[in-house]
Amino acid sequence: MIERIAILGTGLLGTSVGLALRAAGYRGAIAGWNRSAEGAQTALKMGAIGEIVGDPIAAARESDVTLLSVPIYASLDLMEHLSGVLVCGQLVTDVGSTKKQITEAAGRLFNTPERAAFLPGHPMAGKERGGAELGDASLFKGAVWLFTDDSSWVRSASGKRLAESWRSWVSAIGSRVIDIDATRHDEMVAWVSHLPQFVATALSALLEDEVGDAPELRDVGGRALREMTRLGASPYSMWRDIAHTNTAAIERALFALEQRLAHLRENLRTPGLREEFERANKFRKDF
Amino acid sequence: MIERIAILGTGLLGTSVGLALRAAGYRGAIAGWNRSAEGAQTALKMGAIGEIVGDPIAAARESDVTLLSVPIYASLDLMEHLSGVLVCGQLVTDVGSTKKQITEAAGRLFNTPERAAFLPGHPMAGKERGGAELGDASLFKGAVWLFTDDSSWVRSASGKRLAESWRSWVSAIGSRVIDIDATRHDEMVAWVSHLPQFVATALSALLEDEVGDAPELRDVGGRALREMTRLGASPYSMWRDIAHTNTAAIERALFALEQRLAHLRENLRTPGLREEFERANKFRKDF
Repeated sequence: MIERIAILGTGLLGTSVGLALRAAGYRGAIAGWNRSAEGAQTALKMGAIGEIVGDPIAAARESDVTLLSVPIYASLDLMEHLSGVLVCGQLVTDVGSTKKQITEAAGRLFNTPERAAFLPGHPMAGKERGGAELGDASLFKGAVWLFTDDSSWVRSASGKRLAESWRSWVSAIGSRVIDIDATRHDEMVAWVSHLPQFVATALSALLEDEVGDAPELRDVGGRALREMTRLGASPYSMWRDIAHTNTAAIERALFALEQRLAHLRENLRTPGLREEFERANKFRKDF
Repeated sequence: MIERIAILGTGLLGTSVGLALRAAGYRGAIAGWNRSAEGAQTALKMGAIGEIVGDPIAAARESDVTLLSVPIYASLDLMEHLSGVLVCGQLVTDVGSTKKQITEAAGRLFNTPERAAFLPGHPMAGKERGGAELGDASLFKGAVWLFTDDSSWVRSASGKRLAESWRSWVSAIGSRVIDIDATRHDEMVAWVSHLPQFVATALSALLEDEVGDAPELRDVGGRALREMTRLGASPYSMWRDIAHTNTAAIERALFALEQRLAHLRENLRTPGLREEFERANKFRKDF
């Protein structure tokens, strides 16, 4: 049913979606747009897209499904433009890491019977570095793909069918679909995704100041240090919009961890240390 | 030159040393002692030791080299007992994670021309769980093995030769030897080893409280969450002695990270966030 897809933003995620769709048997057209021509060329060479388009709005207008795979604010911007030109019978979906603002905009600008449908999505997959050249057809295998659909939206019949069809493709590329409320989504990912990232950034920045001039110490740290700072390589460009659109929830999570570290620091020689280790062991027990 | 080794403590490290020595061609005897009989039996079955001994002091007395691979306080305890019975021409070495107290005791109880030699060591290798059954002949391949030898010590000629021989075996099992002052060692590992561990413990304990009743959220966190909490599985029994024997340095490192997290929290919407990401990127650049 989906015959033409526009991927707006052929970075790591956009390129990986294109490759994964091809690997799962999608035979329709895939047009790709990217802010930098180089990223689009790479995606084209890798076979993630079949053609490069210069105008993202025109490309969306000609497509059944438009995937927004750009940073949050760029997605919000594109949504404003697209809502005026797309019509009932077209679907827009996204891969943004925070969902409250996107989902609010989706209700305001899309999802009436006359307008195009918008299905807010968030694949829990990525790498610490971005870019089309890291695109990977198996990136979404075994990952969770969250949708923050709103049950109050009334879509056209064709919009509903396209949303169902997109969900099927997400399953076909190996992801497990979970539906969740947008507000709850943003609170939850603050704990299990944004907090781990900001901890790795803070730890890496601190260690750069403390031992950055003694690179042999990195070897001394071994696997534990390597793992705990891997996400320190994540680029600001990817995380700025996340910090800006989920600020309060991230602040809460960071503050809670600061308190937890202080508690541990004050209990290095008391039975409180055992309790913290046992609680941590419990969290890891079923991983 | 080393014909008989006693491994006191056949947990993960002791068992792995035995297996690694065999894999590297060591053909002498290896006697093993362990506080729990089960761990010794496992090490024997795996071929890490050739026989189980019931008395660690008697086993050390009959050996050229005694390896202490038990928690720090147990090592300090054994050192007191061993210094009275071992003689010049015997070597004791260890794998303890903090080195100030061990090295101080080594100077006080060993390392005169008349007494046995003691070479304080610390392989930067391990797993988040312990136990003989996880023993691994390749655990030390590519790892750094730190020694905190003291140049003021005057050993017997045979003690010197045994220490050199042990260093050669450490190289033979694949480790890179680095010599370092004991005080500097403890400060350094507080940053690159102990801090990452305590952060993972605090983060895991916090997440157990926040999302422990919703195990599906662990899947949502994906690889990043899995990695950042892997060390949360580390047992208290392994870390208690480290917290007790390196308290001040660990307190300093934890406090510095608390401040860094607070700085990041207060700058989620300012250019300060970019600076922290760029500093973190720099730390990871050469990994």
